[in-house]
Amino acid sequence: MEDETTNTSGWAFVAVCVCGLILHRPRVARVRPVTNQTASVFSASPCRSCPVPSAPSAPSARLGTATITNMRVFTDYLWFNTAKRQEFVRITDEIAAIVKKSGVAEGIVLVSAMHITSGVYVNDWEDGLIEDFQVWLEKLAPAGLPYRHHQTGEDNADAHLKRTIMGHQVIVPITNGALDLGPWEQVFYAEFDGRRKKRVVVKVMGM
Amino acid sequence: MEDETTNTSGWAFVAVCVCGLILHRPRVARVRPVTNQTASVFSASPCRSCPVPSAPSAPSARLGTATITNMRVFTDYLWFNTAKRQEFVRITDEIAAIVKKSGVAEGIVLVSAMHITSGVYVNDWEDGLIEDFQVWLEKLAPAGLPYRHHQTGEDNADAHLKRTIMGHQVIVPITNGALDLGPWEQVFYAEFDGRRKKRVVVKVMGM
Amino acid sequence: MEDETTNTSGWAFVAVCVCGLILHRPRVARVRPVTNQTASVFSASPCRSCPVPSAPSAPSARLGTATITNMRVFTDYLWFNTAKRQEFVRITDEIAAIVKKSGVAEGIVLVSAMHITSGVYVNDWEDGLIEDFQVWLEKLAPAGLPYRHHQTGEDNADAHLKRTIMGHQVIVPITNGALDLGPWEQVFYAEFDGRRKKRVVVKVMGM
Repeated sequence: MEDETTNTSGWAFVAVCVCGLILHRPRVARVRPVTNQTASVFSASPCRSCPVPSAPSAPSARLGTATITNMRVFTDYLWFNTAKRQEFVRITDEIAAIVKKSGVAEGIVLVSAMHITSGVYVNDWEDGLIEDFQVWLEKLAPAGLPYRHHQTGEDNADAHLKRTIMGHQVIVPITNGALDLGPWEQVFYAEFDGRRKKRVVVKVMGM
Repeated sequence: MEDETTNTSGWAFVAVCVCGLILHRPRVARVRPVTNQTASVFSASPCRSCPVPSAPSAPSARLGTATITNMRVFTDYLWFNTAKRQEFVRITDEIAAIVKKSGVAEGIVLVSAMHITSGVYVNDWEDGLIEDFQVWLEKLAPAGLPYRHHQTGEDNADAHLKRTIMGHQVIVPITNGALDLGPWEQVFYAEFDGRRKKRVVVKVMGM
Repeated sequence: MEDETTNTSGWAFVAVCVCGLILHRPRVARVRPVTNQTASVFSASPCRSCPVPSAPSAPSARLGTATITNMRVFTDYLWFNTAKRQEFVRITDEIAAIVKKSGVAEGIVLVSAMHITSGVYVNDWEDGLIEDFQVWLEKLAPAGLPYRHHQTGEDNADAHLKRTIMGHQVIVPITNGALDLGPWEQVFYAEFDGRRKKRVVVKVMGM
């Protein structure tokens, strides 16, 4: 009898440990291309005698019946090498594709030019307006003036000024898994000193 | 006796399962208007014989005595239909109210015009300066020029340019549950082609 | 015998509770200077008879073998009191130091002027270009005009306009624990009405 009670208490211990182990079984976060830091989610299978629902799908995880959705941060880069010195390129679809790849359903995406003679802006996808922008920028920040920056051997001071007017980054909200843009909003890359390789960083953050 | 020990081991199992169930009892995230994605928080009541403190208040949750504060993302929209074509509207209080509604105490709020002939900016709440802005924008980006965009039937190219100068979005930091603004900072909606329904997205992110 | 089985079932209960307590032992989040809201991470030591790995290092925490990395939000402020009314100050290193202090490895940092006559921008660290910016801003938004804002007793309307051109805030992505900047990107504070104490908020968000 003493053996049996010892056995019982031992069994209770095994039960505690098995439950503990099962409840805390780790789950590997999805590995993503480029740079992807996803807060590791964990999945918990129920103790065999507990009425806990079935396994979760990413990005949520269940601990018993509790769902924990963790933060995701995802990074990608877009490369440009425009044929002309000044060129505006629509990149809405590329941003949407990166957001989809990130798995973020609610959050924001930062789109930021990494070179200081190019910009990123949101406006109309209409060729006439794009020409208006270029004419207007030439008036506000003309090329060919005797800029001091040119004493360094550079000839692109106007590109630095133009990118300042247009802005070098935008944040697009992500709602229900999609870019939360207005009816005519389009994301553009604005090159003011192209014909060489340049980069835009796209940082997705949310859950 | 065998029955009783069996009963005991069964009791041990029940204890394990009851504890497991209680510890992992889910807690429904607060349902919010519009779009609200809150990482579900979970609450854990103590095992009846364990000295674990009482239940938590949102947005934190307790697992035993450990507090887990999860990420929150909250989305809302502001609508505008200005009487005049060009109008600047202070929206600081509306943004603060949305942040309060979100429950986010630490994070950021993105305020972004969803129409490409309006903007959002932060500056002084002083009528003289607002008039200065409007006079200045008319000088930098005049209405009535033969813009190419007008060949599409539009007459608002200057509104696209003006909103580019003013900016179409701002991020306001949220610290200790409030907008972390400087002494004179105010958030404004800048309409350059009004007299119709337009929208601003407000995306709160934090914890 | 009855006593002993009672004792056994009591022992099972103690085992459950000890395990529960150990598994849910709270861990105090690192306290940081200024304002630091880190979602409290929790650490779990193994039940003495369960094969669970050793304790985690911040910012991750282990529950059994599962790693949970929570969101971090960190706030700091930079103060300026420039000798000249208009002055551009490089602040890249200060921002990098704050990001390091925050412990955020993946995320974003918002750098935002809290005074409405100063700005924050990203561009070249080249004295010639900085002079070009100042000459150019004087052309686009001249000082000394009869601005309506000056009827309030102020004399700095041009500073409000200049900061609008340059922008008052930037977001820098954080990747692998460092500012994810392009080869020539530098963060600047742009003062347009200095010689008095002014502040920039730096908000780090990520994990």
